[in-house]
Amino acid sequence: MTKKRVLTGINTTGTLHIGNYVGAIRPAIQDSRDPNVESFFFLADLHALIKCQDPARIERSRMQIAATWLAAGLDPERVTLYRQSDIPEIPLLCWMFDCVMSKGLLNRAHAYKAAVDAATAAGKDPDADVSMGLFSYPVLMAADILMFNAQEVPVGHDQLQHLEMARDAAQRFNNLYATPEHPFFVLPQATGGSSIEVLPGLDGRKMSKSYNNVIPLFEGGRAALDAAIARIVTDSRAPGEPKDPDSTSLTVIFDAFAAPEEREAFRAELRSGLGWGEAKKRLADQIDREIGPMRARYEELMAHPAQVEEILQEGARKARLIATPFMDKLRHAVGLRSFTEIAAPQAAKKKAQKVQRAAFKQYREKDGCFYFKLISAAGDELLLSEGFESGRDAGMWVGRLKKEGAAALEGAPVSFLDGITRDAVEAALLSFREEE
Amino acid sequence: MTKKRVLTGINTTGTLHIGNYVGAIRPAIQDSRDPNVESFFFLADLHALIKCQDPARIERSRMQIAATWLAAGLDPERVTLYRQSDIPEIPLLCWMFDCVMSKGLLNRAHAYKAAVDAATAAGKDPDADVSMGLFSYPVLMAADILMFNAQEVPVGHDQLQHLEMARDAAQRFNNLYATPEHPFFVLPQATGGSSIEVLPGLDGRKMSKSYNNVIPLFEGGRAALDAAIARIVTDSRAPGEPKDPDSTSLTVIFDAFAAPEEREAFRAELRSGLGWGEAKKRLADQIDREIGPMRARYEELMAHPAQVEEILQEGARKARLIATPFMDKLRHAVGLRSFTEIAAPQAAKKKAQKVQRAAFKQYREKDGCFYFKLISAAGDELLLSEGFESGRDAGMWVGRLKKEGAAALEGAPVSFLDGITRDAVEAALLSFREEE
Repeated sequence: MTKKRVLTGINTTGTLHIGNYVGAIRPAIQDSRDPNVESFFFLADLHALIKCQDPARIERSRMQIAATWLAAGLDPERVTLYRQSDIPEIPLLCWMFDCVMSKGLLNRAHAYKAAVDAATAAGKDPDADVSMGLFSYPVLMAADILMFNAQEVPVGHDQLQHLEMARDAAQRFNNLYATPEHPFFVLPQATGGSSIEVLPGLDGRKMSKSYNNVIPLFEGGRAALDAAIARIVTDSRAPGEPKDPDSTSLTVIFDAFAAPEEREAFRAELRSGLGWGEAKKRLADQIDREIGPMRARYEELMAHPAQVEEILQEGARKARLIATPFMDKLRHAVGLRSFTEIAAPQAAKKKAQKVQRAAFKQYREKDGCFYFKLISAAGDELLLSEGFESGRDAGMWVGRLKKEGAAALEGAPVSFLDGITRDAVEAALLSFREEE
Repeated sequence: MTKKRVLTGINTTGTLHIGNYVGAIRPAIQDSRDPNVESFFFLADLHALIKCQDPARIERSRMQIAATWLAAGLDPERVTLYRQSDIPEIPLLCWMFDCVMSKGLLNRAHAYKAAVDAATAAGKDPDADVSMGLFSYPVLMAADILMFNAQEVPVGHDQLQHLEMARDAAQRFNNLYATPEHPFFVLPQATGGSSIEVLPGLDGRKMSKSYNNVIPLFEGGRAALDAAIARIVTDSRAPGEPKDPDSTSLTVIFDAFAAPEEREAFRAELRSGLGWGEAKKRLADQIDREIGPMRARYEELMAHPAQVEEILQEGARKARLIATPFMDKLRHAVGLRSFTEIAAPQAAKKKAQKVQRAAFKQYREKDGCFYFKLISAAGDELLLSEGFESGRDAGMWVGRLKKEGAAALEGAPVSFLDGITRDAVEAALLSFREEE
């Protein structure tokens, strides 16, 4: 069974708060541990350029957000974690989608229409505050998702329409350039729309930077956590007086970091007169029990940017093992082909089909043993197996390598041929999975 | 003196006719031989995707147009000839410009407005026939031009507005991210607008594929040339009757391929009764005298696509020697920086300034001789000079290498340090010219 691909993007224009942690980071990291899921996490730093033209802020935010995800437990060995701007195939795919998507569809995007409404209400030209980036951002988002053929994208309600647009891009491209049996793109599904946990902010409204009511996640340390919690709005009941646990955000936030029995105990104490000050202290402790160790790791990562850089470079490498050969296929599909594929029309067609495909070759040697080789799309020999006594054993290994890809390499009785890198082998193995 | 950069793009959706040759190809090739000009020629195959969704046609046209330019005398050693789609920095720059250009400006683009007018006249939704690609294409064109900081772009009247938009993109980016003293982009100038020679077609209107009145340049061979010329409209005067040389397109087309005295002789013959059939034969001979040898070369190139592929790969390499380090600067400017640049704020700032710059280091050794080294932006030693008896001689070579770049490498008394590629050295030398 092929794993399900799930893709999560994180805009890099600010720092994160505990609402982001509870609503997005924690569940996404949890989901990424599912052995049936292949997770892609990316820093949406090209999207960030739409609304942020402060380079220092972009620089800081990219680093902070990468460190946050890693500190919160995202395992870069297990998932593919990368910066959008490190994948040159993405802006190219964005342009390819520009050429198949109709402007009329984008005219109806909510984010664009909201900007138009605001400008119109202010008596300005409808497009006064709209950059081409804002207008086109659903196209770039379609490229983000479809570059890796993610089946699922956890998004909030506000993003559902953009997911629809990504499906539209996929369908149009498939219709124009693929056969119904072999589409290039799967149609991604939005998930988590209504089940995303929303944390209240200091004032009881949804926790959001735009309301200035957030509790920071790591930045500012424990002191900033305590200071923010001290500002949570409560009623004026004094210590000793019974409190209604539902009259404040305290309990809702507490719940997000507590086991059921802890939640009940906290409520009971409030009902029997726990002072708000003491209650806030308990809340801070409760949160810090979970995020304190993460914060220590966060601070360590922030002090070692080269280490984070290396992790993201490695993530970009992994992402491009998929993006580069896939983009080669898409380039071929639209006609951006190497001239060497032209030649005599018949030969060219055969070569065009072949050029995308690595292959296993099984054979028997004079020593009576069965062997196999892995040959790259370009015809290079990549792997050579040991000799097997039965052809079935050789075939079994070929099957596993095709199905499991690089994961099966560790135990496999094969050796790399001279000068062949692991990258080349992984890319070839990936091509079998792309074809399924 | 730095050479003037001139950039010419050619859309790859069809084949070329002698109107293209006379109006664009021949003068551009002529101009590219000017020793004070550094010419960039590119196949606009990403633009082609806007209006052509026939992959076979795109594939064929890219090859035909590359072969046409080469056959017509474009020297790939002298100019930089590349396919737009081989430069991944271009779509990324396009997105950067999306983020700084206002949608309102694009709403006013002529090509977009023409599509809207046509749809409206047909009773359709104004954006019915507009793709995002059509709407955004001036943004991609700005990226094409500004990626190489072309000072001049020879364009027809219909493209003047797009040049203005490219200037707008350059200015906005400079304003947001650069100091007035060190702008990233020069403002490109349109040239040749009114002086572009327009050839009449078979019916006397402007020669254009959309009028179906063209004389093919190379495709179809001499036979196709003769057949098209036979269709040029003339009056019905018989052989022997005097003809008015200005009553037909024959003479205008003849003029474009003839010396003044030949033009006069042709007119005189017509006046003294040369038959139209014979006149057409002379016209075909006259054209073929110029393009016949080119056609032979064209056919040879078309039969050897791998050779053309190699030329364009080399062109892409040359183009990226400029585009890649320049894009590194632009990435840095907008905040897409390596995390290794973060570190302690003070150190980071110093490093950020340094990281863009290769440097020459001059020194005297114990042997009493003067030496210099070239150090890359990353701090790697690239070149080591021989020992000079005078410091002035060493300085003279440093000056030449800075000013002339790779061109000065041949005779220079330097050796490459271990493991250093010529690419790395050329990129470092280019950075001195970028800074001028």
